[in-house]
Amino acid sequence: MTGASSSCGACKFLRRRCTPDCTFTPYFSYEQAASHFSAVHRVFGASNVSKMLLRLPLHSRGDAAAMICYEALARVHDPVYGCIAHIFALQQQVAVLKEEIETIEMQMASARSLDPLAPTQISAHVSVNQTSCPNEMEQNAVQKLLQDIHQDYYLYQPE
Amino acid sequence: MTGASSSCGACKFLRRRCTPDCTFTPYFSYEQAASHFSAVHRVFGASNVSKMLLRLPLHSRGDAAAMICYEALARVHDPVYGCIAHIFALQQQVAVLKEEIETIEMQMASARSLDPLAPTQISAHVSVNQTSCPNEMEQNAVQKLLQDIHQDYYLYQPE
Repeated sequence: MTGASSSCGACKFLRRRCTPDCTFTPYFSYEQAASHFSAVHRVFGASNVSKMLLRLPLHSRGDAAAMICYEALARVHDPVYGCIAHIFALQQQVAVLKEEIETIEMQMASARSLDPLAPTQISAHVSVNQTSCPNEMEQNAVQKLLQDIHQDYYLYQPE
Repeated sequence: MTGASSSCGACKFLRRRCTPDCTFTPYFSYEQAASHFSAVHRVFGASNVSKMLLRLPLHSRGDAAAMICYEALARVHDPVYGCIAHIFALQQQVAVLKEEIETIEMQMASARSLDPLAPTQISAHVSVNQTSCPNEMEQNAVQKLLQDIHQDYYLYQPE
């Protein structure tokens, strides 16, 4: 099913005739043409995406198309960081959660060593949903990650 | 500086003359031609990347080139999930850490209600580095996230 038209979203966007063996038809609906496929075409290029999908076995193409679409939309939304912004945010969230666990462990160890009969001194309240960082910490984390990526891939920093 | 040659990595890979105003020169070294720029060209296409960089202010282009390079290398490494595999792994890590915090909180609450004088019953050991999930949990998380992405973008699941 490709919506109201017999063209898929990709062919509608590319203004070409949609053939029965069109690579995109199963993964891009007619309705997605304006938003999704335009992002995919702008970021990856229709020809590159077609080649990437055709290199994969049929059963993997749906997932690959979804991931490519996600990456493309993320890059249109954030032209510098794209979906890596999501990776940065999650890495920060992991760091904050690990810190929370370490804090509880230290509080528990400290409470036991100072006063083994007073478990109520342990602050048990840990806000699981509190994952935002102060701006400075956030910026430092982003800078550190950027340095790692630059270093990993031996990219030159523009002067 | 672009390595031993006066060409940057992109122009070396594309076998074209590198001009002083080449968009890629500050971000792709001569040595990266085979590995990095070939991935960037294969996944995004040189022309698309050039356009994406030129749309950005100069001070953002270094970061954007690093992110594009990261995404391209990740997609060559994992042609189905690309760098979204990293997002899945981090989402799982966040879920496991949240679960660990909830477990500690429940243990603490339970220990206090059952025996307020026995803080040593609280299992304080939480392995901060233990973030791997059982295979089943991992697969379920990936399936759930895939469903979310498919749903978010209204992508058709191939039959």
